[in-house]
Order: sequence, then C-alpha cells, then structure tokens
Amino acid sequence: MTFHQNLSPTLALAFDLISRPSVTPEDAGCLTLISQRLAQLGFTLEPLRIGEVDNLWARRGQQGPLFCFAGHTDVVPTGPEDHWSYPPFEPLIDSEGMLCGRGAADMKGSLAAMVVAIERFVTAHPDHPGSLAFLLTSDEEGPAVNGTKAVIQHLQERQESIDWCLVGEPSSTAQVGDVIKNGRRGSLGATLTVKGIQGHVAYPHLARNPIHQAAAALDELAHTEWDQGNDYFPPTSFQISNISGGTGATNVIPGHLTVVFNFRFSTEVTAEILKARVEDMLQRHQLDYELDWTLFGEPFLTEAGPLVDAAIHAIEHVTGIDTVLSTAGGTSDGRFIAPTGAQVIELGPVNATIHKVDERIAAADLDTLTDIYQQLLEQLLAS
Amino acid sequence: MTFHQNLSPTLALAFDLISRPSVTPEDAGCLTLISQRLAQLGFTLEPLRIGEVDNLWARRGQQGPLFCFAGHTDVVPTGPEDHWSYPPFEPLIDSEGMLCGRGAADMKGSLAAMVVAIERFVTAHPDHPGSLAFLLTSDEEGPAVNGTKAVIQHLQERQESIDWCLVGEPSSTAQVGDVIKNGRRGSLGATLTVKGIQGHVAYPHLARNPIHQAAAALDELAHTEWDQGNDYFPPTSFQISNISGGTGATNVIPGHLTVVFNFRFSTEVTAEILKARVEDMLQRHQLDYELDWTLFGEPFLTEAGPLVDAAIHAIEHVTGIDTVLSTAGGTSDGRFIAPTGAQVIELGPVNATIHKVDERIAAADLDTLTDIYQQLLEQLLAS
Repeated sequence: MTFHQNLSPTLALAFDLISRPSVTPEDAGCLTLISQRLAQLGFTLEPLRIGEVDNLWARRGQQGPLFCFAGHTDVVPTGPEDHWSYPPFEPLIDSEGMLCGRGAADMKGSLAAMVVAIERFVTAHPDHPGSLAFLLTSDEEGPAVNGTKAVIQHLQERQESIDWCLVGEPSSTAQVGDVIKNGRRGSLGATLTVKGIQGHVAYPHLARNPIHQAAAALDELAHTEWDQGNDYFPPTSFQISNISGGTGATNVIPGHLTVVFNFRFSTEVTAEILKARVEDMLQRHQLDYELDWTLFGEPFLTEAGPLVDAAIHAIEHVTGIDTVLSTAGGTSDGRFIAPTGAQVIELGPVNATIHKVDERIAAADLDTLTDIYQQLLEQLLAS
Repeated sequence: MTFHQNLSPTLALAFDLISRPSVTPEDAGCLTLISQRLAQLGFTLEPLRIGEVDNLWARRGQQGPLFCFAGHTDVVPTGPEDHWSYPPFEPLIDSEGMLCGRGAADMKGSLAAMVVAIERFVTAHPDHPGSLAFLLTSDEEGPAVNGTKAVIQHLQERQESIDWCLVGEPSSTAQVGDVIKNGRRGSLGATLTVKGIQGHVAYPHLARNPIHQAAAALDELAHTEWDQGNDYFPPTSFQISNISGGTGATNVIPGHLTVVFNFRFSTEVTAEILKARVEDMLQRHQLDYELDWTLFGEPFLTEAGPLVDAAIHAIEHVTGIDTVLSTAGGTSDGRFIAPTGAQVIELGPVNATIHKVDERIAAADLDTLTDIYQQLLEQLLAS
C-alpha cells in the first residue's frame, strides 16, 4: 500500500479493503476487517460460509423497521496487470485526486463509506429506533448462488425480513448521487435448438434445413413488441446473442441450429408470460425444437416511499443534486432482496471505470458518499 | 497386389491402376501406364504438367468428329486405413466378386474399361472416321484448377474442339448403365457478412443486432422460388450451409453475422441472374453487408442427339437396360468441357461406395462397362 498522510476515515478503510486481492469468490480478509469495526458498534455478527463463499449478516437492534446496507467484497479479475497504470491491489490517490485500484468503484469504496457512515450515525444515535444491518458477500461477481441469494434464504427461513435496503453498487453516471437505481429489469435467457435433418446441398429433398425453418420465427421474435414499458421501465427487449449452425463444409445442410437469446423485461410482463409467448410462436412456426430456459432475475421496482424519498433528500441535502431514478443497466444482488418485499435501491459512486483496467473514482466522492449515507440514516432512523 | 489368375484385360489394368496410390493431386504413374497403351495404338501423346498436376491429352486421327474419353487418375484420401476391410491400395476381388480398393468405382475402373474398349475398337477399325482422344487429369478430386479446366483452355487456344465427350464418372445407381448423367446443375456459392454494431444486451439502443436485421432476408431467400426447373432439371435450390454470429457470451449483441449459402441451379437461370436477385433482396431489406461469390460451375445439358442416343442404344444392346437420363447430383469435370460446345455425358459404374471406406464395385461390371464403351464407339465412329 502506498503511504498517504491525512486520509479521511472512509479513504483509509477503502485503502485497506482494496489492498486485499479479493478476486471473486475470494474475500481475502475484507469481511474480518469490517466485522471488527461493526462488533465495536454493538452489531451481532453472523458469518455464513457457504461453499467457497464468505458471507456476513450483521445486525444492531431487535426492532423494526430494519435498514440494511448490502454489498460485496469480491472484485472482478484484473486482466493483464501490466496494462494497469498502477498495480491494481496497491491503492493510491493519483495527481488528479483519483482513488485507483480494483474495487475502488465496484464496490469497496461504497463499503468503506457504509461503515464510516454507520459509525458516525451510531455514535450520534446510540439508541436509534429500528435496527441496522449489513448483508455482505464475496460472490456477487461470480455465480451468485452461494452469496446474497443464500443469505436471504437463510433469513427467510427464520422469518427475518428487511424493510429498507441500500445496495452500494456504483449507480452514479457523471457525479456521485446523480442516479439512484430504484429497480432493475428482469433477465431471462434461453438456448433454442432447432432440429432439422442433415444432408448434402445437392440433394435437398433428402434433408430439412433448420436455418431455413427457423428464419421466420427468429424474425418474428426479433420484431415483436413484448410490452410498452411503463413509467419506471423501458419496453421489454429481446436480443439474440449467439447463433450457430453448420458443419463448416459448404456442401452440407446442417442437422441443427442453436440460438441463444435473452430478454431484459419490465414489470409489465413476467418470465412465465414471456416463456409462453415464445413457445407459442415456435409452435406456430411448426419447428421441431428444444428450449432450455434460465431465469437470471425477476424485475423489481421500489416506487416512491420512505426509502426513495430519504435517498433523494439526502443527496439533495449533501450535494444539491436533483437525482434521477433509473431502472436501466444490468442485474445486481438487489434482484434477490427485492422479492422478499423489501424496498431496495442502489446508490453508489460513478460507474464509468467498473470492470475495466485502471478502475478509479474521485477520492473526494467517497467522503461525499459517506455523508449521503449518514444523512439517509438520519432521515430514516434518527430518534 | 494380390495375385489373381485369369483376370480379364480390363480388370488386370484396373488392378494395375488401383495399386498406384494416387491420392489427389498425385498421379503415381497411372498416366504413364495408360500412355504406353495408347502409344501402341497410334495415339499422339501430349502430357501437360501444370503446377503439381499431371494431365494428358492424347489423340488418334486428325479429322472430325472428335470423340473423347475424359476422366481422372487421382482418388480421394482413404481416411484411417485400419477402418478398411483390405488395404485400399492392394486391389483384390473378394468372395462376393467385388473389386475392392480406393478408386475401384471413382474412377480407375472406368479408365481401364476405356483403354480396353479403345484397344478393341481400334483393332477392329484401324481406319475409323473422325478422331479419338483421351483427356485425363490427376486433379479432379482436388481444387480442379490445373486439371481439366486448364487442358480445355489449352485446347481452346489452338481451336481444337471436342464434339462428343464421355466422362467416366460413376453415374450408375443400382446396376451398371441404369443412369446416364446428361447434364449437371450449376453450383454457385457465397459468404454473406451482415454488419451490425456490437453492444451489451442490457443496452440494445446502443447496438444494432445483425441477426435480427438479417432474419427476414434469410427467410425470404430460403422460401423464394428461383425457377420451376424444366424437363431436364429440378427447380433451382438454395441452401444455407453455415450460419454464425455471437461472441459466445450470452450478454453481448454480436457485431456481425456470417452466412454461407449455395445454389444448385438449372439452365432456366444463370449465375448472374441469381446474384442480381440476391443482391436486390438484401438491399431491399436494408442490410449493411458484404457478399463474396464463388461460381463453382455453370450448369450444362446435353439433350437428345448422337451421343446420348448412342449411349442409350449401347446400354440397351449390352445389358438390356432401359437407361435413365439424369442431371441430379454433384459437380464433375463435365462442367469445364460442356461450355466449349461439346456434347457431354457421364457414364460409369455404380456409385454407392465412392469416397467411402471399402470402396468397391462388382468386378464383372467393368467388363460390362468395357462392352458398353466399345459398343458406343461402334455406333458413333465405325467405318
């Protein structure tokens, strides 16, 4: 770790976390570091190691409402380290004031801001009403099976439920706080195999070309309006990501065609409705097919209410920014928490460099984010 | 070579040819063997080595009409030799009377029958009218660039033209002589690249999916009637042999789509007409595309006339079979000879095992084929 004097408490913790090379699903000691800080505040710690994934459920208080910070200690791989301007696990603040390192934006910076915000809030309000919690995992960037999803299942089994949840994903676009994600589209994928009969192109009457048979169905799938979206969601979109058929030889009619596609869907439809409509379409085109579905996540939406309102006001209070609600972008662990009935938002730093070489954010943004988180807690749970 | 007593002259020569491992483009001495036999009959020999390909033009006589036997000495690879019942280059006649070995059917058996038929005919008619010729190559199974195509070009440059040509390709289906190929469909191939804009499936408005854009055009191509064929040809057929698009990742919209397709076309259209219609269709669908065409061969047709009539009668005379004219199947070197204005037919042994492991034909069929070839010569050129 490069030595920096006079780091703020949030930046000092962010440095500590980034210097731990917690490439998914490794935690590399991050949760231990955070657990020590939370234990000092009176949190009850419940480490949950599932498979090779480290998770932590930590709670302070027995009453409702329960506010929870959620996030992950794992980071995506660095790629070739020699493409980085600085070693990815040796955090530093460069001459332009940028905190550099893998996880600076996604999302060790947020974790540091959450811990420091909680420390300040608990110090100011040791007898706050309701409860505070942390739901942390080392498997958000990987399969995401033994992480948040498993912890939520564990909580549901004992009927412990979250009322308000802030996921620290980097939601901001140009300035910290300019965008809150108050929902996410659902993601539904499938692999379609259309079966034909292989043969020689010179003898087409002895073969059945699955590409020819499927073309009209694919055209219809690609140009169907699945819904019109709503105030919070853009229209559901369908995209074919991969298609392949053929033996490589130019004189052979292939025996099958494989098509991989994905829906990003709004709350105007459900996965079941989409599945039924696709199956209906394929059958109408009289295809001989197999279809293998994977539901990556249901859509979720947190409409205006105490959590969204508090976040909007906290951002305005700290930064003066009139924030924007958005449901765009990829999936997050919010998809596992929202179905329990919790209000869920994502609010974190600027996401411009996530998953890239030279991941970085403005160092000062983490102090701003700490203030926003603290202000949010003041609005929701100050006594 | 396995020792067999009392082989007929045709089978003895077929044994000699098959034992030469002339895997394309190797000739392995086959042309030398045939040349020696033709020289003894008074043929003028013109060996033409072009690149790594051995060709032979041999002619007896200066007058027209010119009858030509055409064929190839090269064979396709054997594949794993241990899958063969007998070593592929050690010909033998098995207990069921089958001549076994690579090239037995395609087409060293035909070459032997041609040579012996010519020997008998010339012995009986030393002063036959017209001329006799052989056009042989060691590159029919390979690229077919420096073979028959090049010899024909050479002949055309000195204005030497063939009137009647019999290609010894294995045309027969169940019995030797049951099918004459009196034409072949044309073969036109293309690789189509449809260009889109790569992006993330979660942000489809920033991408352009080439699979979605192409689907309707592919459907139209697959279901267009290009012509209705005619008395000699089935309707022109279009087949997509290969399609591929996608990065492998399920969340990425691909940047381009590649489609390989092939026309087998009748004499009712031309390659230029097909190209123009496809380009028109792709433009109408407003695709951003590249198209790379390859014309493998124009269609050709030899209608009823002296050559077809002589072949029909020769088969009927020798075997009693009422033969069938056909233009089905793949391409042959006939595609290079027919455009010069020659009448061209293909007539050879049963093709059931060509290009396969354990290639074989009934040994007796080669003697029958010799008789048919001799009878054909009698009909066309007996004095």
